[in-house]
Amino acid sequence: MKLTLDILEDFARGAAFLGTGGGGDPYIGRLAAQYAIEEHGPPDLISLDELDDDTAVFPVAYIGAPTIFIEKLICGDDMDLAVTKLEELTGRKAGAIISAEIGGVNSIVPLAVAARRGLPVVDADGMGRAFPEVQMVTFNVYGVDASPAIIVNEHLEHVVVYANDAKSTENKLRAIATEMGLGAGLSCYPMTGRQAKDTAVGGTLSLAIGAGKAIAEGRRQGDPIEGLLTYLRSTPYYNHCKVLFDGKIVDLLREVKGGWTVGTCVLDALDGSGSRMEIIFQNENLIAKVDGVTKAIVPDLVCVVDRESGEPVTTETLRYGQRVKVIGVSCAPIMRTPEALEVFGPRKFGFDEDFLPIEDGD
Amino acid sequence: MKLTLDILEDFARGAAFLGTGGGGDPYIGRLAAQYAIEEHGPPDLISLDELDDDTAVFPVAYIGAPTIFIEKLICGDDMDLAVTKLEELTGRKAGAIISAEIGGVNSIVPLAVAARRGLPVVDADGMGRAFPEVQMVTFNVYGVDASPAIIVNEHLEHVVVYANDAKSTENKLRAIATEMGLGAGLSCYPMTGRQAKDTAVGGTLSLAIGAGKAIAEGRRQGDPIEGLLTYLRSTPYYNHCKVLFDGKIVDLLREVKGGWTVGTCVLDALDGSGSRMEIIFQNENLIAKVDGVTKAIVPDLVCVVDRESGEPVTTETLRYGQRVKVIGVSCAPIMRTPEALEVFGPRKFGFDEDFLPIEDGD
Repeated sequence: MKLTLDILEDFARGAAFLGTGGGGDPYIGRLAAQYAIEEHGPPDLISLDELDDDTAVFPVAYIGAPTIFIEKLICGDDMDLAVTKLEELTGRKAGAIISAEIGGVNSIVPLAVAARRGLPVVDADGMGRAFPEVQMVTFNVYGVDASPAIIVNEHLEHVVVYANDAKSTENKLRAIATEMGLGAGLSCYPMTGRQAKDTAVGGTLSLAIGAGKAIAEGRRQGDPIEGLLTYLRSTPYYNHCKVLFDGKIVDLLREVKGGWTVGTCVLDALDGSGSRMEIIFQNENLIAKVDGVTKAIVPDLVCVVDRESGEPVTTETLRYGQRVKVIGVSCAPIMRTPEALEVFGPRKFGFDEDFLPIEDGD
Repeated sequence: MKLTLDILEDFARGAAFLGTGGGGDPYIGRLAAQYAIEEHGPPDLISLDELDDDTAVFPVAYIGAPTIFIEKLICGDDMDLAVTKLEELTGRKAGAIISAEIGGVNSIVPLAVAARRGLPVVDADGMGRAFPEVQMVTFNVYGVDASPAIIVNEHLEHVVVYANDAKSTENKLRAIATEMGLGAGLSCYPMTGRQAKDTAVGGTLSLAIGAGKAIAEGRRQGDPIEGLLTYLRSTPYYNHCKVLFDGKIVDLLREVKGGWTVGTCVLDALDGSGSRMEIIFQNENLIAKVDGVTKAIVPDLVCVVDRESGEPVTTETLRYGQRVKVIGVSCAPIMRTPEALEVFGPRKFGFDEDFLPIEDGD
């Protein structure tokens, strides 16, 4: 399948949904991909099965705080240089590009990189959602080394990190990304096709396109959110899903701190029941509680959408008075294993509770 | 000349003096050098003239805050790895090691690195004193590129910085050094023998040894400070020198902030005149004022010594009640040019005044 211009809008919408509020505004990624595709032609989307075991597969992503990317635009050459340097350092020519996260700008930027280099994009990513830290990918959980990691700024200054584990890589990259103004291009976790097959969450670009399409078709049929839920129930990973809350944003605390966009969003129920939801986010939505009871928690997805149009709302565009629905969605099984929860389970975000699968909640 | 064990004590004392309070406690560097020399034999000290123009000359230094090095020891392998990586990245085998700064631990650590590798140490450095930031070296002022810069921590994790200028290199290294706990090994400014000749401050290791000896001999003759001043007046750079103040520390503010040990030290005169000196430091002493009037300012040297023994006092060992003499010393002429003052003149440290050579003050 070719990733042509006409799929970009659905893809961006679906990726914004799966990004659970994070990954940055996909509109920016869409513009970058659109420009690259117009210039260089559409890249191929290939499945994990179509990858040769010994192909060099490089993930690319922007690192920083989504709030920053509203004003600090991405340049394209930065990511290109990151991949070129990773090729030099590994001595391997990239044969395919893979998304680190299927969320926002970071799900679409790989298309731009692939188009510019004439490479295919792998239909997979490292989490089937978005997460705020570099170690929070299945690549790391299942044994791919994050080093060397290359981070590049808009002046094409670059820094190469060789750390002993992925969390230490994250710590060093976050320090540098902060110095670089909290918006920088990144390529790390160089891997083989075999490693991608063994560690990635498969099919997620197709699923994002499907989710984006379902919202659009639902709009034409009068209920975008119902259209989306129906689609998600037909998928292999996102099949457990439900509307957790229908409300209005009555309080919002959002700041750029520690290298991320962090905060809390409070919603009051629109049904007059007096119920209140609280969502805590670190780039991405991490937990949703109703009247103090956890309804969905990482690594399951907490997604905020406009209650009329079904359009996903990212954490940096939340605003007081917005009327939204909050949807909880199951993550991929590969994200729920004990070793995966050791890397991005609730306790890794400082929550003093165990993971509760969305389908087991009330 | 061989840098044998018996010169280390004088060298450390003299380097602590020239370090103007910074560069870290030379005792730590002395232990590292002693161990390496016992293990591998003493390295040669060679003059800039003895360097071949095409020899690869690598500077090494620890980066961080001196306060940290009291508790976080250096390991040696870190610096070794920094040099090895710089060799790999430049494709050139190091032929000589040079000090970045002739101050504290950073003046002596090059001996350890050189001894371990069987290389000579160049009798020169990048400032003839110590300074807190990576761009503040004559190597940078006179055209040597700081990149690639390699920073290594005690776990042998390492980061390579390619920045567009030396100040940007400093910014990125400082962010990483802070993440690494504010004590890390560094090798950058890879240069040729020709570049070293054109940019370095020559003879400074010999001068440090001479200063250390002069204090020791002065002690035997009853006045270490007079012995030191007499020696300094015989040198090519440090010939303008005087005791600026004889006092007792009555107030001290010292904190680790922004990646440095910063603070202010206030002294009352011991002669009962009611005069008061204020010294401001950022790792190193930057300015000394008496009753609000500047007496010495960067890049000239402001050195604090014990008023009886003449032992240099570093900024992290300043303490309330200490009785000290403060000595002002002229820096090398190569450090006072307009282009040099553009990099490390008073305004680069936030002082709203021009450089005033020590010999022109009252």
